[in-house]
Amino acid sequence: MKLSKRINNLKTSPVRKLLPFADIAKKKGVEIIYLNIGQPDVATPPIFYDAIVEYTKTEKTLSYAHSAGLMELREEIVSYFADHKIDYTVEDVMIVNGGSEAFLFILTALFDEGEEILVPEPFYANYQSFFSTLNIGVRAIPTKAEEGFHLPSFEEMEKCMTPKVKAIMFSSPSNPTGTVYTKEETERIIALAEKYDITIISDEVYREFSYGDTRAVSLGEYPEVAQRVVIIDSISKRFSACGARIGCVVSKNEELMCAIYRQCQARLAAPTLEMVGATALYTLPSDFFTPIREEYALRRDTLFEELDKIEGTFSRKPEGAFYCLVGLPVDNAEDFASWLLSDFSVNGETIMVAPAEGFYATPGSGANEIRICYALERDVLVRAMHILDEGLKAYKKLKK
Amino acid sequence: MKLSKRINNLKTSPVRKLLPFADIAKKKGVEIIYLNIGQPDVATPPIFYDAIVEYTKTEKTLSYAHSAGLMELREEIVSYFADHKIDYTVEDVMIVNGGSEAFLFILTALFDEGEEILVPEPFYANYQSFFSTLNIGVRAIPTKAEEGFHLPSFEEMEKCMTPKVKAIMFSSPSNPTGTVYTKEETERIIALAEKYDITIISDEVYREFSYGDTRAVSLGEYPEVAQRVVIIDSISKRFSACGARIGCVVSKNEELMCAIYRQCQARLAAPTLEMVGATALYTLPSDFFTPIREEYALRRDTLFEELDKIEGTFSRKPEGAFYCLVGLPVDNAEDFASWLLSDFSVNGETIMVAPAEGFYATPGSGANEIRICYALERDVLVRAMHILDEGLKAYKKLKK
Repeated sequence: MKLSKRINNLKTSPVRKLLPFADIAKKKGVEIIYLNIGQPDVATPPIFYDAIVEYTKTEKTLSYAHSAGLMELREEIVSYFADHKIDYTVEDVMIVNGGSEAFLFILTALFDEGEEILVPEPFYANYQSFFSTLNIGVRAIPTKAEEGFHLPSFEEMEKCMTPKVKAIMFSSPSNPTGTVYTKEETERIIALAEKYDITIISDEVYREFSYGDTRAVSLGEYPEVAQRVVIIDSISKRFSACGARIGCVVSKNEELMCAIYRQCQARLAAPTLEMVGATALYTLPSDFFTPIREEYALRRDTLFEELDKIEGTFSRKPEGAFYCLVGLPVDNAEDFASWLLSDFSVNGETIMVAPAEGFYATPGSGANEIRICYALERDVLVRAMHILDEGLKAYKKLKK
Repeated sequence: MKLSKRINNLKTSPVRKLLPFADIAKKKGVEIIYLNIGQPDVATPPIFYDAIVEYTKTEKTLSYAHSAGLMELREEIVSYFADHKIDYTVEDVMIVNGGSEAFLFILTALFDEGEEILVPEPFYANYQSFFSTLNIGVRAIPTKAEEGFHLPSFEEMEKCMTPKVKAIMFSSPSNPTGTVYTKEETERIIALAEKYDITIISDEVYREFSYGDTRAVSLGEYPEVAQRVVIIDSISKRFSACGARIGCVVSKNEELMCAIYRQCQARLAAPTLEMVGATALYTLPSDFFTPIREEYALRRDTLFEELDKIEGTFSRKPEGAFYCLVGLPVDNAEDFASWLLSDFSVNGETIMVAPAEGFYATPGSGANEIRICYALERDVLVRAMHILDEGLKAYKKLKK
């Protein structure tokens, strides 16, 4: 069987590529703290489960839902945006299988093979998966760790433009950097998009996750550019419901939404029960998120207190999401991360982190970095950073 | 916003394209019998819901599942195949978002742009959706209504081959024709695949739906060609759980399964709760399906008794699934089907059917045909055929 070229370009996710090494650790009886994956340990609000249980009592046949999603869910999402002073209607919202399918559908609607997308680098590794299978070229906008991965100047971004570029990808708060772009930066992106007549794809799944005085700006707050904006959203992180796989595509561009809808029809529907649960989640009051945000801010602060103690690491405290990139005093972070799983433990426990190279399109970049997800309880994070510290010391000795 | 060429090739699903006309009927207070969509009215086995309710009691956080699917579900599917005397292991099974995602992932793994696929025509319209967005060329193998849409000779099929063909698509029992291919036909497909060294993609989601003495042959029954076979399966029809969106990709080809897995990783996971329910469904005893099969056979027979009474229609009683294509004495079946919704009713009731043109790749084919799904209770089918009959008479007068 000869596979396609496009599939051969698709690499294993950096978040999950070390799973075989995790299996080695487990076989040895070593417990693993999972810092590799954005899986919050926060409970899913019980209202989610309650709504599903209620539904199962009355609906004997689990039928296909409408291809665009349950109308009640679309309405609740419109209300949610209204609470954020962002004006959308149900026609502007379509329900999909998580942010991933949102991204796939948007890219398919916009790009033919060989066309290009601008993306601030580093970026979420699964973006690259879809770029690969759709043969979309990446024009990486370089950002610097020392500048907290904030955007370069308009002129620097402009240098990345080519006639093949059809859209710019924007993610704030950002996975994997945790960076929350300022209002001025957001407007710099808008100015670029307008000057070159390109679309802005805005991944806002971490919208609520910004800490202290920082507030994440939504592209939906700029009605004057609504026709060139499409937003990716998801319940996964907001409501700690990653396993539900419910997301949405949001845009006022009718032509685009029609193209999204035709793709929704081709795969028939999103899962009914999970949409019923999601509908309930969106009825939660907007202050529901306040204690969760405070908890994540504390976790971030705890992580950085501990990280600061570890010699040779480099990272700046980011403004949002629950990720950070950490530079390590090793040549190859992937080798180190594999070794932590296969050969290292402290009191029967080790950590799994994501090697960061897969978050970069530029070859060689990020080779000494890891991505840490701090969506875990603080005492676990303290133990995890102790393991990282001890691991680095032991690895250094080993490599001498 | 300039959309991609590939998305402009993606047409609206024939199964759902008349929904705007259905809205007109509903606004008038006219009830609609939905013959357009393969949505069984059979109850989902309660064990599905029970398993989910049980899960919600113990799991506080709805987490991402493993990208390849819940191991318990994969194990149950292996047992299910073993019951059918087909040998697979968990490594050969990956869980996806319905048969649709299975199809998308398989095509992406196999085809680059401009490569071609052989498909007996007519075929399931959503296949065409994925061919369009992936820019895969279709080489249609023509079949004839008079021959019950069975395959032409080896030599006829061979005429459709080109050097660009990488696979043949096979669907038995077939949607939209209801045809169940014989053992000899299945082996004709295998001989063709071997001679030209191409892959066989076998859509077997209706495996249990064959009536009378007919038995649907699975491509999994031919271990000697296992390396060139990949099966699409789904719980949607088998267990009347269309809204769950749980399907699987099944193959012994390791390289292919690795390519499927990387795509599974890129979209993270299938929905957790629905997989929990699906796991329970696969524990049902194999005779669970017997009364359901009998019921569908009766529905088919009822439908054809009624169809035979309608002047000018043409259809042969198919061997399986719950669809049939019906030739109508009209020039344009889509216009007629729209008119049934917008302007016609009998005792406040009308029918929605799928115009069949979208099931053909060859332009102009199927223009006077409709697809009927008979997954509804018999008395409803009798009423539906009466409406079709009266509708045809009234339409004929109108067109004079």
